[in-house]
Amino acid sequence: MIVILKESHTPQQFDSLCGWLKAQRLDIQVNKGVRQTVLGLLGDTTQLDADLLRALEIVEDVKRVSEPYKKANRKFHPANTVIKVGDAEIGGGVPVLIAGPCSVESRAQILSVAQSVKAAGATLLRGGAFKPRTSPYDFQGMRAEGIELLLEAKKETGLPIVTEIMDASQLPLFEDVDIIQVGARNMQNFEMLKELGRTKKPVLLKRGLSSTVKELLMSAEYIMAGGNPNVILCERGIRTFETATRNTLDISVVPVLHELSHLPVIVDPSHATGVYRYVHPLAVAAVAAGADGLIIEVHNDPEHALCDGPQSLKPEAFAALAEQVFAIAPYAVNR
Amino acid sequence: MIVILKESHTPQQFDSLCGWLKAQRLDIQVNKGVRQTVLGLLGDTTQLDADLLRALEIVEDVKRVSEPYKKANRKFHPANTVIKVGDAEIGGGVPVLIAGPCSVESRAQILSVAQSVKAAGATLLRGGAFKPRTSPYDFQGMRAEGIELLLEAKKETGLPIVTEIMDASQLPLFEDVDIIQVGARNMQNFEMLKELGRTKKPVLLKRGLSSTVKELLMSAEYIMAGGNPNVILCERGIRTFETATRNTLDISVVPVLHELSHLPVIVDPSHATGVYRYVHPLAVAAVAAGADGLIIEVHNDPEHALCDGPQSLKPEAFAALAEQVFAIAPYAVNR
Amino acid sequence: MIVILKESHTPQQFDSLCGWLKAQRLDIQVNKGVRQTVLGLLGDTTQLDADLLRALEIVEDVKRVSEPYKKANRKFHPANTVIKVGDAEIGGGVPVLIAGPCSVESRAQILSVAQSVKAAGATLLRGGAFKPRTSPYDFQGMRAEGIELLLEAKKETGLPIVTEIMDASQLPLFEDVDIIQVGARNMQNFEMLKELGRTKKPVLLKRGLSSTVKELLMSAEYIMAGGNPNVILCERGIRTFETATRNTLDISVVPVLHELSHLPVIVDPSHATGVYRYVHPLAVAAVAAGADGLIIEVHNDPEHALCDGPQSLKPEAFAALAEQVFAIAPYAVNR
Amino acid sequence: MIVILKESHTPQQFDSLCGWLKAQRLDIQVNKGVRQTVLGLLGDTTQLDADLLRALEIVEDVKRVSEPYKKANRKFHPANTVIKVGDAEIGGGVPVLIAGPCSVESRAQILSVAQSVKAAGATLLRGGAFKPRTSPYDFQGMRAEGIELLLEAKKETGLPIVTEIMDASQLPLFEDVDIIQVGARNMQNFEMLKELGRTKKPVLLKRGLSSTVKELLMSAEYIMAGGNPNVILCERGIRTFETATRNTLDISVVPVLHELSHLPVIVDPSHATGVYRYVHPLAVAAVAAGADGLIIEVHNDPEHALCDGPQSLKPEAFAALAEQVFAIAPYAVNR
Repeated sequence: MIVILKESHTPQQFDSLCGWLKAQRLDIQVNKGVRQTVLGLLGDTTQLDADLLRALEIVEDVKRVSEPYKKANRKFHPANTVIKVGDAEIGGGVPVLIAGPCSVESRAQILSVAQSVKAAGATLLRGGAFKPRTSPYDFQGMRAEGIELLLEAKKETGLPIVTEIMDASQLPLFEDVDIIQVGARNMQNFEMLKELGRTKKPVLLKRGLSSTVKELLMSAEYIMAGGNPNVILCERGIRTFETATRNTLDISVVPVLHELSHLPVIVDPSHATGVYRYVHPLAVAAVAAGADGLIIEVHNDPEHALCDGPQSLKPEAFAALAEQVFAIAPYAVNR
Repeated sequence: MIVILKESHTPQQFDSLCGWLKAQRLDIQVNKGVRQTVLGLLGDTTQLDADLLRALEIVEDVKRVSEPYKKANRKFHPANTVIKVGDAEIGGGVPVLIAGPCSVESRAQILSVAQSVKAAGATLLRGGAFKPRTSPYDFQGMRAEGIELLLEAKKETGLPIVTEIMDASQLPLFEDVDIIQVGARNMQNFEMLKELGRTKKPVLLKRGLSSTVKELLMSAEYIMAGGNPNVILCERGIRTFETATRNTLDISVVPVLHELSHLPVIVDPSHATGVYRYVHPLAVAAVAAGADGLIIEVHNDPEHALCDGPQSLKPEAFAALAEQVFAIAPYAVNR
Repeated sequence: MIVILKESHTPQQFDSLCGWLKAQRLDIQVNKGVRQTVLGLLGDTTQLDADLLRALEIVEDVKRVSEPYKKANRKFHPANTVIKVGDAEIGGGVPVLIAGPCSVESRAQILSVAQSVKAAGATLLRGGAFKPRTSPYDFQGMRAEGIELLLEAKKETGLPIVTEIMDASQLPLFEDVDIIQVGARNMQNFEMLKELGRTKKPVLLKRGLSSTVKELLMSAEYIMAGGNPNVILCERGIRTFETATRNTLDISVVPVLHELSHLPVIVDPSHATGVYRYVHPLAVAAVAAGADGLIIEVHNDPEHALCDGPQSLKPEAFAALAEQVFAIAPYAVNR
Repeated sequence: MIVILKESHTPQQFDSLCGWLKAQRLDIQVNKGVRQTVLGLLGDTTQLDADLLRALEIVEDVKRVSEPYKKANRKFHPANTVIKVGDAEIGGGVPVLIAGPCSVESRAQILSVAQSVKAAGATLLRGGAFKPRTSPYDFQGMRAEGIELLLEAKKETGLPIVTEIMDASQLPLFEDVDIIQVGARNMQNFEMLKELGRTKKPVLLKRGLSSTVKELLMSAEYIMAGGNPNVILCERGIRTFETATRNTLDISVVPVLHELSHLPVIVDPSHATGVYRYVHPLAVAAVAAGADGLIIEVHNDPEHALCDGPQSLKPEAFAALAEQVFAIAPYAVNR
């Protein structure tokens, strides 16, 4: 860690700072320049709060040299993490397709969609049982019953299931769920992340709407620090000024995350755009950029879906998407 | 609700849409123009999902005329809500000062800060017991013990206390807390909001880093829909491209929220700027704009604070801030 | 155009509004609902200022039904525009590669890079002669001399050239330039756009850092309204909170712009990311999503480039990029 | 400047870097740590391109210690700059009010508004003659004739005038204009800034919609580097995700700019909010935070204004604003 001191400081301030830093068991290299003094701190600075240092009268700025995440960091784990769920290998070199409706609405619906997406090449089934909705008056999901129906669809089709948790207290219901999804709004629900760290279940961690790449990796670190190494990162669009799409798909994070971390990275073009017509081209683009998979909303009757209809594909449209994705995959960027 | 249809649509599509809308118990006014047809929907459209309509082939766009929040809406509750906590009246015309350290660190620290801020004119004490930190390796707060110490400080000084909850399971610990704070990262932790709606405790609801004014009001609605009318809204900075301050204080929401809602609005310049030097001018500005109060970080020893030191004021600096705030208040914009 | 009136308004206000609207030669359809009145305006509302209407006491909101751009609009020009420059056809179905250094630095440099990129499959040469730099103390480009050197490189290699204009007064120097580039910072330099509208030269119009898709199309409209139909749209990253890349490449605009407009769309992953390692995967992704071309920075000696070194590819790296782009192109999304 | 090297680098890379840096006439302090090597560069690093360094294989990161602006920097010019225009002193301790219509529309209009705002306490008159409009089909201003009418209003009322320039070629028309305004869209029209640097006229420089504080100061530096020290900085709202106001007024920049620069800072709440009801509270807040002045849109007939009606105040409303601003000014934060 590099600490840049202000030009004007007293020897007392300087000694007090150095004394405090030494008390943190850090070695200090002092470099006096013509116009500024710079301290190099050696030792374990992970625990040191950069903001705290920045607050001192004497300090001009602070610069971390090493990243504050360890377990998610590729530096300390150069090989790609591959997560096996059923027949699917996420991060294994072939893009996986996770598909299904925004919400589980009925037995007929989920079974029908599950069969369609399986036929089109999906290897995992998604479906919302607990639904985070902006309005308390909107449909909140079928909850426990929704999970039951997903498990039935799993039994019938063999597809492992992915569904979202909204509170740690719901964990017992997720015992037979294959991948637990953490939604964008809960990416920094740290108490829940800690609980997920105590399980061994794969966690699909969605990036928050205004979360940086670093924050996403720090949230992965919360889960991993608890002992659960099975984290799948998911880009689902960030909030920007542009309104032509619901959010802005930040496709750059595919290579950025692959560089910084060994965890698999999947992309959700359905939530990112909010418009079914744009889902197909962005799905193809994400795979071309090296994404390890896609999560796509598919509904047998999007016009009457209880939520997020506008971004859902009909099964035939999903089949067309899957076909182009598999056709382009061999020409995609290697992770 | 206004539904604008695409130029090219078939009579079948049109009939199917109208049939579906009527099934939702809505009346339809059809207005055929030269180039487009516009439907006016009459009835209770609160339950209708605008995104769903927008997804239909036949629909060009949808426009909500009435806001989807009711209990938080000034239209249905024109008088200002005043929330009384101890001697403080939040929303009562005089700005209240909520002050204290980012984290409770020790008995000595919290008692010392409580006495200082009381002397300077604060009427509520804040202090973090449960701390949401980006890194799992950073100090996570004294938790239950921190709440105990806050209650001691309350006993000693008479100041009601405000502290943050991070998970609904922690609620039993908050029985004697006067105001429960919901942090920015949990503004859309809907399961927790529902639980808070079942209590009668005042809730200080912080705006998410990338939440719109509407989303903030919808989250207030979650709490109010459950039966708890005691919600205090809090602006604490939004995430933008600018890095000169940690976040961008969106001071415009003071008049905007006062127009849209009857709930009191307080401002947190400490978290918004992240820099103690800017806290004072922004506190003064917020009160001038009509804010119902401020929440300010004060620490007796910011240089050694366990978190958020850079944005904390020393007690003397807080006293100066309080003095200027009370001096300017009579000239401030009336809510 | 739809005008929604406030619940409470006087008959006088209503009559005054209708009178004024009629004076604008518009027909008015009045739809009185239970809780609100909505006006449908028929006629040419292009000239009507929606903001103006919104400002009226009586008006709750205004909604435009038709887009305010005409010449750039696909509705009125369904076929793709193809722009031919030398041997290159931009928008013709095969992605074109525009490549070259950020700045022209010397005869040796530009000739060397031009030959390299041509060998790798580029069909146009880019190079900055006039350079917009944030700091007045940074290198401002070789200016007129830089254009001379570009023309020499064109002569030698046969590659048409693309270079940026910074002020309308520089136009005479661009007589032999094949495509005039308008940089992101000048996307709304309306006086310059008007001048470019008076030429017939193809204009490569870069999206501003915080410009919406609509604003980009309106700026294209400025050029087209003047009589110049040869506009190429260029996405080069927008400004968001994320700092892992210099800007955030908004790849969604590829399908969005193709839907809204008939103009070709190219993508600049070099400026979007600012990091050479990310240029290749994003270039591949953009072409997969259906982009009509790429503009890529290539430098024979990026470590010593006078500007934007970090985002420049070496010629070998560009050749690898071109190879993968051409390999993936047949599997890309069709425009 | 601090250069942090990557852990893995060869001695050849290291020597090559040091050789290049020395060729830039910089002294190098090498600090080898356990896990990284850090170089401190001494000498004039203003000319050094940080991005260039960051691009090198061997470099992990680069940190500028000193700001790249000099003439605008308070470090080198501690006293506040005061700009005198007619009777007004901008930056002199008392907030100045600049008021007038968005556009000059007619002799009657501008004279009437000028007299109203003067009576209410404004000391400068603003009015647009050249109007930057997003659409080529919107009113583009009265141009030369508008300036003539402003000069007439100046003659009649004695108020100095402020009006916007859109292209350097218009400069001859601005000979009798007191303050030349550079609009947000032209903040980085560097060729025009250079021309304005060659005059001695005060320049009111508006912050771009997505410009950082540093970029604003660098644009001021462009003007000052040319020899014109008379720059007034203006905050007018930035582009964010929030749509409740047209832009987000970034009031924090008032103390931030006062800390970093000696130049006066004024605030434009009219353009920032786009809604006349919010202009008054934000004007009061800006002055409370220490702004050196305000620029406010006032129109005698906002409902029929040719542009930006929704954000214009009627003269009576402006008089009320001025009264509260002058009442609160003595209690405002001192610069």
